[in-house]
Amino acid sequence: MRYPNGVKKEIKTYTNYGNRGMGLENDIGISNEYYLSNDIAIIHKKPTPITIAKVDYPSRLEAVIKEGYFKTPSTTDYNGIYKGKYIDFEAKETKSKTSFPLNNIHSHQIKHLEKIHKHGGIGFLIVRFSMLNKTFLLLVEDLLEHLKNEKKSISLKYFEDRGYLIKEKYLPRVDYIEIIDKIYFGGSYEK
Amino acid sequence: MRYPNGVKKEIKTYTNYGNRGMGLENDIGISNEYYLSNDIAIIHKKPTPITIAKVDYPSRLEAVIKEGYFKTPSTTDYNGIYKGKYIDFEAKETKSKTSFPLNNIHSHQIKHLEKIHKHGGIGFLIVRFSMLNKTFLLLVEDLLEHLKNEKKSISLKYFEDRGYLIKEKYLPRVDYIEIIDKIYFGGSYEK
Repeated sequence: MRYPNGVKKEIKTYTNYGNRGMGLENDIGISNEYYLSNDIAIIHKKPTPITIAKVDYPSRLEAVIKEGYFKTPSTTDYNGIYKGKYIDFEAKETKSKTSFPLNNIHSHQIKHLEKIHKHGGIGFLIVRFSMLNKTFLLLVEDLLEHLKNEKKSISLKYFEDRGYLIKEKYLPRVDYIEIIDKIYFGGSYEK
Repeated sequence: MRYPNGVKKEIKTYTNYGNRGMGLENDIGISNEYYLSNDIAIIHKKPTPITIAKVDYPSRLEAVIKEGYFKTPSTTDYNGIYKGKYIDFEAKETKSKTSFPLNNIHSHQIKHLEKIHKHGGIGFLIVRFSMLNKTFLLLVEDLLEHLKNEKKSISLKYFEDRGYLIKEKYLPRVDYIEIIDKIYFGGSYEK
């Protein structure tokens, strides 16, 4: 994915979202910041779960983690609220041009989304086919429907048939709230 | 706070919530696990936000954090869903017998709760006076009302007048959902 000139600077302010060169993660971070500052929705990325094994205290006020390990997340990366509704999703990129491999998503993350759906929340995946420059939103109910037949991957065709293409814009970069608004609230999303 | 015999073992399985001897944090972790396994509510504690400065890769599959720093959280510690409603709260303990010092809570955490309330979510504080063995739930609207007059602390009396005392039980240990259920759903919480 390419950015127009001058946008890089803006991305830099989002290094706290994890500056690991992930296009989609940065784009969602910027979109969430847009929703927040325009009072549209409150969606945050959860911090990366880490097991801390050793902490040094060079001074009374300072703590430095000297040994830590990445943990498997027990939930999805993003959650929050839109128009009073609970929102929960996971976002992933794939370089494949034909299908999204499901080993990208932990089974307990899928179970988590299933529970959210059952409890009346809005759960979904955002999947970007980075080589095709296409980003889709797939509701958890359609994900679960798919998993009945096929557990290894989701074809591009399934995203095209059952998912929602998220148009790339300048701001918000990945306007997934617009899609959610159309599906659940009749599209009265105010920009 | 003392636990009956045999409960310690149970607590041990919650070391992933941060085994820092925090009674309230452990109690809420156990309560959330109870809500989850009984399909009552889905509430998770967010991981501690950390800035990772250095990572070693002793092998292709292993990553060890060698330098990291604790970050100021930008939101509250807990969020999730109950009966379709978005739930968001912060939990704190104090050793004071008379008032809860507000420097325990970051100003952007209060702003976050205020936004959640504005967007139709349920936001609150859970505050334990550990010396008195009393735990209160205070809704964000009552917190904001208080902050109009007094920004340094919240008196025990204010919690007694405007807050809700959470009864200590065996399971769930800190049954804050029961309170939320009474306030917002007419108390039809099924146990």
